[in-house]
Amino acid sequence: MAEPDPVTAYADLDLGRAARRGYPEAIYCEGKSVEQVAGIAAALRAHPEVTTLFTRASAEHAQAIQLELPDAAYDVTARLLAWPPQLPKPSGGLVVVVAAGTSDQPVAREAQLTAAYLGRSTELIMDVGVAGLHRILARLDLLREARVIVVAAGMDGALPSVVAGLVSAPVVALPTSVGYGAAFGGIAALLTMLNSCSPGVSVVNIDNGYGAGHLAAQIAAP
Amino acid sequence: MAEPDPVTAYADLDLGRAARRGYPEAIYCEGKSVEQVAGIAAALRAHPEVTTLFTRASAEHAQAIQLELPDAAYDVTARLLAWPPQLPKPSGGLVVVVAAGTSDQPVAREAQLTAAYLGRSTELIMDVGVAGLHRILARLDLLREARVIVVAAGMDGALPSVVAGLVSAPVVALPTSVGYGAAFGGIAALLTMLNSCSPGVSVVNIDNGYGAGHLAAQIAAP
Amino acid sequence: MAEPDPVTAYADLDLGRAARRGYPEAIYCEGKSVEQVAGIAAALRAHPEVTTLFTRASAEHAQAIQLELPDAAYDVTARLLAWPPQLPKPSGGLVVVVAAGTSDQPVAREAQLTAAYLGRSTELIMDVGVAGLHRILARLDLLREARVIVVAAGMDGALPSVVAGLVSAPVVALPTSVGYGAAFGGIAALLTMLNSCSPGVSVVNIDNGYGAGHLAAQIAAP
Amino acid sequence: MAEPDPVTAYADLDLGRAARRGYPEAIYCEGKSVEQVAGIAAALRAHPEVTTLFTRASAEHAQAIQLELPDAAYDVTARLLAWPPQLPKPSGGLVVVVAAGTSDQPVAREAQLTAAYLGRSTELIMDVGVAGLHRILARLDLLREARVIVVAAGMDGALPSVVAGLVSAPVVALPTSVGYGAAFGGIAALLTMLNSCSPGVSVVNIDNGYGAGHLAAQIAAP
Amino acid sequence: MAEPDPVTAYADLDLGRAARRGYPEAIYCEGKSVEQVAGIAAALRAHPEVTTLFTRASAEHAQAIQLELPDAAYDVTARLLAWPPQLPKPSGGLVVVVAAGTSDQPVAREAQLTAAYLGRSTELIMDVGVAGLHRILARLDLLREARVIVVAAGMDGALPSVVAGLVSAPVVALPTSVGYGAAFGGIAALLTMLNSCSPGVSVVNIDNGYGAGHLAAQIAAP
Amino acid sequence: MAEPDPVTAYADLDLGRAARRGYPEAIYCEGKSVEQVAGIAAALRAHPEVTTLFTRASAEHAQAIQLELPDAAYDVTARLLAWPPQLPKPSGGLVVVVAAGTSDQPVAREAQLTAAYLGRSTELIMDVGVAGLHRILARLDLLREARVIVVAAGMDGALPSVVAGLVSAPVVALPTSVGYGAAFGGIAALLTMLNSCSPGVSVVNIDNGYGAGHLAAQIAAP
Amino acid sequence: MAEPDPVTAYADLDLGRAARRGYPEAIYCEGKSVEQVAGIAAALRAHPEVTTLFTRASAEHAQAIQLELPDAAYDVTARLLAWPPQLPKPSGGLVVVVAAGTSDQPVAREAQLTAAYLGRSTELIMDVGVAGLHRILARLDLLREARVIVVAAGMDGALPSVVAGLVSAPVVALPTSVGYGAAFGGIAALLTMLNSCSPGVSVVNIDNGYGAGHLAAQIAAP
Amino acid sequence: MAEPDPVTAYADLDLGRAARRGYPEAIYCEGKSVEQVAGIAAALRAHPEVTTLFTRASAEHAQAIQLELPDAAYDVTARLLAWPPQLPKPSGGLVVVVAAGTSDQPVAREAQLTAAYLGRSTELIMDVGVAGLHRILARLDLLREARVIVVAAGMDGALPSVVAGLVSAPVVALPTSVGYGAAFGGIAALLTMLNSCSPGVSVVNIDNGYGAGHLAAQIAAP
Repeated sequence: MAEPDPVTAYADLDLGRAARRGYPEAIYCEGKSVEQVAGIAAALRAHPEVTTLFTRASAEHAQAIQLELPDAAYDVTARLLAWPPQLPKPSGGLVVVVAAGTSDQPVAREAQLTAAYLGRSTELIMDVGVAGLHRILARLDLLREARVIVVAAGMDGALPSVVAGLVSAPVVALPTSVGYGAAFGGIAALLTMLNSCSPGVSVVNIDNGYGAGHLAAQIAAP
Repeated sequence: MAEPDPVTAYADLDLGRAARRGYPEAIYCEGKSVEQVAGIAAALRAHPEVTTLFTRASAEHAQAIQLELPDAAYDVTARLLAWPPQLPKPSGGLVVVVAAGTSDQPVAREAQLTAAYLGRSTELIMDVGVAGLHRILARLDLLREARVIVVAAGMDGALPSVVAGLVSAPVVALPTSVGYGAAFGGIAALLTMLNSCSPGVSVVNIDNGYGAGHLAAQIAAP
Repeated sequence: MAEPDPVTAYADLDLGRAARRGYPEAIYCEGKSVEQVAGIAAALRAHPEVTTLFTRASAEHAQAIQLELPDAAYDVTARLLAWPPQLPKPSGGLVVVVAAGTSDQPVAREAQLTAAYLGRSTELIMDVGVAGLHRILARLDLLREARVIVVAAGMDGALPSVVAGLVSAPVVALPTSVGYGAAFGGIAALLTMLNSCSPGVSVVNIDNGYGAGHLAAQIAAP
Repeated sequence: MAEPDPVTAYADLDLGRAARRGYPEAIYCEGKSVEQVAGIAAALRAHPEVTTLFTRASAEHAQAIQLELPDAAYDVTARLLAWPPQLPKPSGGLVVVVAAGTSDQPVAREAQLTAAYLGRSTELIMDVGVAGLHRILARLDLLREARVIVVAAGMDGALPSVVAGLVSAPVVALPTSVGYGAAFGGIAALLTMLNSCSPGVSVVNIDNGYGAGHLAAQIAAP
Repeated sequence: MAEPDPVTAYADLDLGRAARRGYPEAIYCEGKSVEQVAGIAAALRAHPEVTTLFTRASAEHAQAIQLELPDAAYDVTARLLAWPPQLPKPSGGLVVVVAAGTSDQPVAREAQLTAAYLGRSTELIMDVGVAGLHRILARLDLLREARVIVVAAGMDGALPSVVAGLVSAPVVALPTSVGYGAAFGGIAALLTMLNSCSPGVSVVNIDNGYGAGHLAAQIAAP
Repeated sequence: MAEPDPVTAYADLDLGRAARRGYPEAIYCEGKSVEQVAGIAAALRAHPEVTTLFTRASAEHAQAIQLELPDAAYDVTARLLAWPPQLPKPSGGLVVVVAAGTSDQPVAREAQLTAAYLGRSTELIMDVGVAGLHRILARLDLLREARVIVVAAGMDGALPSVVAGLVSAPVVALPTSVGYGAAFGGIAALLTMLNSCSPGVSVVNIDNGYGAGHLAAQIAAP
Repeated sequence: MAEPDPVTAYADLDLGRAARRGYPEAIYCEGKSVEQVAGIAAALRAHPEVTTLFTRASAEHAQAIQLELPDAAYDVTARLLAWPPQLPKPSGGLVVVVAAGTSDQPVAREAQLTAAYLGRSTELIMDVGVAGLHRILARLDLLREARVIVVAAGMDGALPSVVAGLVSAPVVALPTSVGYGAAFGGIAALLTMLNSCSPGVSVVNIDNGYGAGHLAAQIAAP
Repeated sequence: MAEPDPVTAYADLDLGRAARRGYPEAIYCEGKSVEQVAGIAAALRAHPEVTTLFTRASAEHAQAIQLELPDAAYDVTARLLAWPPQLPKPSGGLVVVVAAGTSDQPVAREAQLTAAYLGRSTELIMDVGVAGLHRILARLDLLREARVIVVAAGMDGALPSVVAGLVSAPVVALPTSVGYGAAFGGIAALLTMLNSCSPGVSVVNIDNGYGAGHLAAQIAAP
């Protein structure tokens, strides 16, 4: 096959989504070939009026995207690219993202960046797991300023229950695949969060930082 | 044992919670004995300044509660009692609760009543599953007025994905245990919702109408 | 069959166990017929030098046992009988049993009574789940006196992680089947506890109050 | 071992199957060594009257097969080889294959090619997931021409329920392993499809494009 | 509440479905109250032009339906009611339903009756499990007359693989919850069928006789 | 329906099995109606040359069978009936059945009786779980006389590994549903046995005493 | 650490096992380091009176073993080494090993070689899955000569049920990890086999060719 | 990004933990980048008064740590580093660590080293699985000297039940991921241990040698 497939052979870009739903389009890169992602990036070049996020982009994906959209912003930790790269001026309420441990950082940052590109002001609190309660209690003031709190945690996933008990804002629980053995790649944390004894907690998919950030932006919308 | 245990022997009522978190206290009746629930109801009599919800109350629980708090309001379908029985004057945004099928009604009504007792105006849309798309599409106007939408569904749990794709409000997906066989008591619907291909969806526990309604009230808070 | 089976046809009583391991014998009643339990009780009558516990005894089991051993002590909540009924004089360290919610009471009491019959002094702290952190923080002094702490919790099972982070004593995490939906009869709490981010936590089977109490007594042995 | 095993040592080719069941033989390559697949290809050379499909062929498998059967047709995306390479003249009804997302393309193409090699005319519709309902609704005319529709979807697997509600043809639901976290490698989509609230849906194994295409060809047989 | 809810409060009857999809409406009774089912039956009385099936109807459901629709036909084994009760004149191909064991009869009969009410001629073959292969081999002639075969099996679920290897018609595999222990209520049979080594097999939900019969009727449509 | 279905409507009795496989026919009663079991019993009356076992027979099943076959032998604990009731004269090697605890007795007795009716001499050893190793070590002489050993155990299922390490005979591991919580109705014991670190162990389904006894009889055949 | 650990630091060789149980010792190589396996091989050199099998040996393991025991026999497909390399003179009954598909060959050969090294005569039948019943029916004569039959199958795992229904010998079902998707690495086949509707089937762990062969040798012992 | 993040951007070191809980701080390296671990090591250099353990350290992690803390002690088998490297003078009771097989060595050594760095005297017993009971019985004297016993086992996980039945000390059961197939990466062993029929057993996460050693040190504290 000498010619690559045209983008219409594998993707039906939903450029009307920003108009319809009020939020940017996102391209989930995992499971797409580098060629497909590049083709999508090329097709988007004509549409700078829509901010597009590329999520779960590997180094190869990122390189191919930046070949087509050289000024796209790439955050290596979050594996996220945004084009056009400018953050919108924040509106609505504050989104606070909390990560239980250092290893939850990539997912937490994906949530934070997504919320920021969807137009919210954001804060990140790192490494405040329940094994040392004094750490989260020291941040109560900031937590209570939030319109919504995203809490990322792996292993026992206990932090969202504790945070939700301390504030009146809704909590988006974000289980991560951090852990081993009976953590089952995040299932243990997911179940903990679904069974939270504190009301006000809902859950997104394991490692779904994009989804948590998107939802938080919607909740904190003006 | 001639005397019943005092309430302090089995419950530490958190009457400060309304002050601390801004929302009423709730007593989860399932797993508590009728005597324990009655004891708690009696202890609350002196605190009419706090609205209390009794959730998952069986007929026996309800009878015992109404013996202690005769004017408590009881909704049989939702298995919910509220005392004092008056609904607060609504504030904040509109909460729309959507149920995919007739069998999802009890859980959906628990969500609706909870949101109403937490101070929101609410609407309920019944029996609009994805097997007949025209039914949900006919309600688009109401859906787009909502500040937040709770979508209850069992079996394939596909409705939240469809609804979220049509609106800009956040969606609280509420899996129900309706179904049989590989529905696994709601696990299939729960997984569908966690994997929603539409951003803007988060999930609560299976049949957790109370939690969904509570969260919706927080999201739609003024 | 005119005659009941002799006890030797279905049970090989391990009367040497107290001598060998230093702790009383226990008869797990669930799954045994009333006739079998009665037969075992009758056979034990000749051995008052060994304290025997009958665990998970239904009302029918209890009645049959007390017919053979009239002074056996029966705790309805814990479904536990002890014969001879006298508690030994306590020795060793203090065992503190903590229950996250009111519904965890039966399992927690089984743990407490077991530890007491194995010779420890015990304390019980009820209804101090993580949704209201101030409740457990208010009991820190007692928790820090313990040689070992048993923490019973259902639903999200988060309490053992929080407790273990506050004390230097080992924590025996005791998951209970309290909850619904994705609590999966205690599996969610079990997984939370196995993945505790606080070191110093180990776990016993769901609703295994007897096992938790036995282990706690061994840990706090003189 | 100087000599390779003869093909009869590891495979009992079912050359009578085409006669018996009316459909070509297929060799599932995954789990077979390159030597074994080459041996089978060599043995088939004497049987050009039977069309053979090699499924799940890696690049190494393909190279070895084409060494023995140089004119075998290889589709890299679908990982499928056919020999002899000519498509039969189509008969029977139309098979439409629908893929929810770009990442479902390999599996969808395997289904389409299989149906085509079994003698049906086929159409492929790409990237029409339920997050943007307008995309699938725009293809209703083609969907309603089909004698059978194969619907491939990962993640929430909701598309088959929606499609089946719009047409009278049977739907073969084809779950794919696209997704992450609680997608569990396609289990979430599989369960969604098994619990479809629309009648007229049946399900094949995860990523089983070959099976879906084969079944569709049988359903659409003249 | 003095008055019952009107039917529109809990159900949105899809009377247009027969026109839209060409097949009768069905009411899934499990999970609906007797009052709700009666209300639906009453609402249908004005629509004898549409055949309606009531599936999974308990004795109480059936009694309530027949009070509203006295001539509704009730099959106790299949727990199915049809109204109007007349079977349509058969058209299209033959649907053969095969049951591996005696205990699979209720589910198999539900499949057979559904296909018959959807307008197909049907045959039922009982108790031909793979433990005695001669039994199924003795029915080969009838099997080979079928346009589609539904194969119901519990326990090891092996029969569909064997049947599919003997015929050219598509096979709808219908796992049943017959079995115990590691049968896991039909999961073992479901998995066996999803992994069938014979092409031409697809699977419906456990015990979903209605769905299997509906699909078979669609496949065998004229 | 005035008349009951003839037996041929729901069962295809395999009277040739004894001739073909050399072992009696068995009727699995669970999941069959009392009428069906009675019908089968009546049909067997004309075939006293074949020994038939009725397994998992409830009290109602048993009563109905004994109405048709009054001299059928019924063992209440094992829920097994045999007709004609005479045990065959033993041949082949000795089958020893071992039960870890008192609660495993019903399943162990089903295994023992099955092996006896299939023509083997049998011995039963009760209540020798690994918590008190001296009990099983005291029976080593009998264990080493066996041609095959069936070991029934619930909970941790550890006994087969220990027994297999002590003898040269093959061990049939028979997991039982005895236990609670993470015993998962016998899954824990099943997994333990499948992963036995002692070679010489194979496993049958949970609570499948009939299957274990049948297999043991085959292994110990002359 | 300049010196390697002595073998006694990590292994307690059970050289008495052959005497005690009558069968050779086996070293399971997976999970052991190359150094550890080499150390064990060196320690065995002084014990040629005991046949030792090294199972699941990688190429690196094999090389290290043959450095210490140069005449050890290595079967690459089965990943098995034997030392001393001579097969014992066969005694007892015939062991027939059946493999459903070509991909099951490695596990089947491991079973066959193990039985042979334990002193049995063996036969191997390849690629006779149930999708083409004529293949297994063509081998009935050989199957009926066997004292025991090992049946290896992946995917639907249906072959053992079919084989057991045709013979009077016991069947050792050997699930393999061949398959994909809902095969779950052999779990589907394992469950099928545990739920076999044919009596006379027991099951070993997934891919446990060694265990199946060992057990078969015990069953067929003189 | 020219500059690395400061350690405070991703970690909130809990240096007060030793004071608060009486035990050293531990850094779990898996899931942290080499840069993050190096940053933490650098930050600790100023705190030699606190012993820090780095667990699950890969070779790359270890190299980076030793660049910052050159005298840190590294145990390759246990993947553990300690700094400062000196073992404390032992106090309290004896901790005995038992490993069922050679492959359990890394996890067992992690447990032993952790207990030693927390100030206990320790002993290690290797390769004493239940397949050869004489091996563990030969070590009874040492086992009975222990204040607490850690028992590591994979596969069937049966050893803790056997050990607990022989001693009066508490047993910490440590499941390992050793095994294959239905061992499910340690789940089988985990379940066995949770269901131990011997009282006195509690369980930590799969492969959690650090947690087991930490807990053992707490139990054996003076």
